[in-house]
Amino acid sequence: MLNFNFKNQTEILFGKGQIKEAKSRLPKDAKVLLLYGGGSIKRNGVYDDVVKLLDGVSFEEFAGVEPNPTLQTLMQAVELVRAKQLNFILAVGGGSVIDGAKFVAAAAHFDGEPWDILAKGAAFSSALPIGAVLTLPATGSESNGNSVVTNKDTAQKRAFGSDIVQPVFAVLDPVYTFSLPLKQVGNGVVDAFVHVIEQYLTYPVNAPLQDRFAEGILQTLISEGPKALTTPQDYDVRANVMWSATMALNGLIGKGVPQDWATHMIGHELTALFGLDHAQTLAIVLPTLMYVQRGQKRQKLLQFGQRVFNISSGTEDEIIDKTIKATQDFFEHMGVKTRLSDYNLAAADIDKLVANLERNGMTALGEHSDIDLTKARQILTLAL
Amino acid sequence: MLNFNFKNQTEILFGKGQIKEAKSRLPKDAKVLLLYGGGSIKRNGVYDDVVKLLDGVSFEEFAGVEPNPTLQTLMQAVELVRAKQLNFILAVGGGSVIDGAKFVAAAAHFDGEPWDILAKGAAFSSALPIGAVLTLPATGSESNGNSVVTNKDTAQKRAFGSDIVQPVFAVLDPVYTFSLPLKQVGNGVVDAFVHVIEQYLTYPVNAPLQDRFAEGILQTLISEGPKALTTPQDYDVRANVMWSATMALNGLIGKGVPQDWATHMIGHELTALFGLDHAQTLAIVLPTLMYVQRGQKRQKLLQFGQRVFNISSGTEDEIIDKTIKATQDFFEHMGVKTRLSDYNLAAADIDKLVANLERNGMTALGEHSDIDLTKARQILTLAL
Repeated sequence: MLNFNFKNQTEILFGKGQIKEAKSRLPKDAKVLLLYGGGSIKRNGVYDDVVKLLDGVSFEEFAGVEPNPTLQTLMQAVELVRAKQLNFILAVGGGSVIDGAKFVAAAAHFDGEPWDILAKGAAFSSALPIGAVLTLPATGSESNGNSVVTNKDTAQKRAFGSDIVQPVFAVLDPVYTFSLPLKQVGNGVVDAFVHVIEQYLTYPVNAPLQDRFAEGILQTLISEGPKALTTPQDYDVRANVMWSATMALNGLIGKGVPQDWATHMIGHELTALFGLDHAQTLAIVLPTLMYVQRGQKRQKLLQFGQRVFNISSGTEDEIIDKTIKATQDFFEHMGVKTRLSDYNLAAADIDKLVANLERNGMTALGEHSDIDLTKARQILTLAL
Repeated sequence: MLNFNFKNQTEILFGKGQIKEAKSRLPKDAKVLLLYGGGSIKRNGVYDDVVKLLDGVSFEEFAGVEPNPTLQTLMQAVELVRAKQLNFILAVGGGSVIDGAKFVAAAAHFDGEPWDILAKGAAFSSALPIGAVLTLPATGSESNGNSVVTNKDTAQKRAFGSDIVQPVFAVLDPVYTFSLPLKQVGNGVVDAFVHVIEQYLTYPVNAPLQDRFAEGILQTLISEGPKALTTPQDYDVRANVMWSATMALNGLIGKGVPQDWATHMIGHELTALFGLDHAQTLAIVLPTLMYVQRGQKRQKLLQFGQRVFNISSGTEDEIIDKTIKATQDFFEHMGVKTRLSDYNLAAADIDKLVANLERNGMTALGEHSDIDLTKARQILTLAL
């Protein structure tokens, strides 16, 4: 096992009606930025619950944070925070809104050019505190310090992370996910699944508990994910998906083990250049990445297939092939297509993707830093 | 799944040499109470590392916290804190020392009779902050707010719990456990195992992720525990046991599910009256409690046997019998005897135990509150 430091500062308020618990977690002098997305929260009752929560609290609204939130939109929210001297952000939505809140929280206090926080890893030492009300289980953003923002002007999708912008609380009410479009449910399950894979499917370091936890999340997503599509109002199913997605990326399972993240990095370019949903990019890249990296990941691929998909017959290579196929089938079963051609992308587009990877310095990806541009091209070509 | 709130405020500093990370976590104006037990830390080098950590920091030592720490000893430490106006406790040891630190931390700031915190659940609103250096993986006390203290004068072993006394950091260096007596290693593994069982072996509430996590810890303890006895210097084995014991009782796996704790409550009387090690009491009580409660715990007993011990053949009742036997065998394999007679206790002693349960109000134990004194007597009698 590798050395690690671990603390998770987010208080989880989980379950039906738990938003009422959030009231006492707001600062006494709170001047709140209520940040949300496209307005679905006004149709499903979440907005009403939030406004009730903010009864007697000073707040300003900023709507319109888009999926894959952009620098250009978020900077408008930064201006609002500065103009109204707001001191707390309540992010209501999925990972995009919460990621956006983290950028706004840091940028509002930042002296220089805020994009430098992502583009150059510029350090920042303070941010507005954030509370989250989660409506889409997927990214784990509600209880980690990570954020991904897209710069529309430069077609760059970049990440930053800091404890300083990690939410102080997160309301996880499964009922808030009942009305989600099934496409978003499927995307969310795939996203959470791949988060686990990035922290699990590397090489063994004799950390069996981390392996068991990762496998437990994968098994739960495999059993509950499809039910979330067929019985959308089943509270327990939604609760299990929601808790799995949070545990997938709250930092715990990745402690003491190597991590990969190449699928995410390659996938980011698919979103930045062609606007694919984040989960779609992961569903495209992961299977062929597993295929190309089957040597480096051999032992964990076998363990993954045997323990998670119960694949035990055949030679080791056959088990690995079946495991990759099972992963792909699971994504398709969740309604997320796994080939570039499913999204009308072709060989010529791979040149652009590889060029973008090069431009962003993504030339040594994966747990061994051995996924260079040649391998990335191979992974993408196999996914045509 | 049940509603829950969850946050764990303890920063884990895990791995070889991680004590050096603790320096920056001490308050700048720290006046430290260095609290430890019987002096083993002076023989195994931990004391030297701690003194190095405290270089330049004002501190006082209090040694002699016993296993099953007593009110009488701890009140001496409280006096030292008050006399020297100390403001931070560094607890170096296992669960007894850390449990003791929690009591000292709360009692030193408490206006009334400190034993009331345990005996009457008296509320307290402040405590000295605590840092822990763990030398014995077992109780999980290093990252929770729970404490158990024994009053020698009244033969009462009672618990209290509060976030206020939860350690702010915990150093978990597996090397610090290399020199543990094997008896303590075995006890620790059994203790952690039963902590998981108390939060897992109840009735299903459709919380599959919590089940998988619990099973993952149990599987890890079953695979690594025996190796910790046969190859005491194996770093990874010790690391895996240590991380499992912490995860067993840091609050996570019990969130959203029913909990039992009857084995602990009955076991506490065995320690209070006859001085048995905590783990010995759990190893005695759990198997026969499982037998007596096999109706109420039927579904989870089957799942436990099938998933954790891979017992699949036979009728359901045969699977349950084999599962109870496998649990008992595991405890014995870890060197912890499972019958009252192994500790020279006999039928007449059960009367005293039942009387003590009654005196302490332990008359409706378990996840259904259905373990009354008659059932407790039955559980103990079967364990003769």
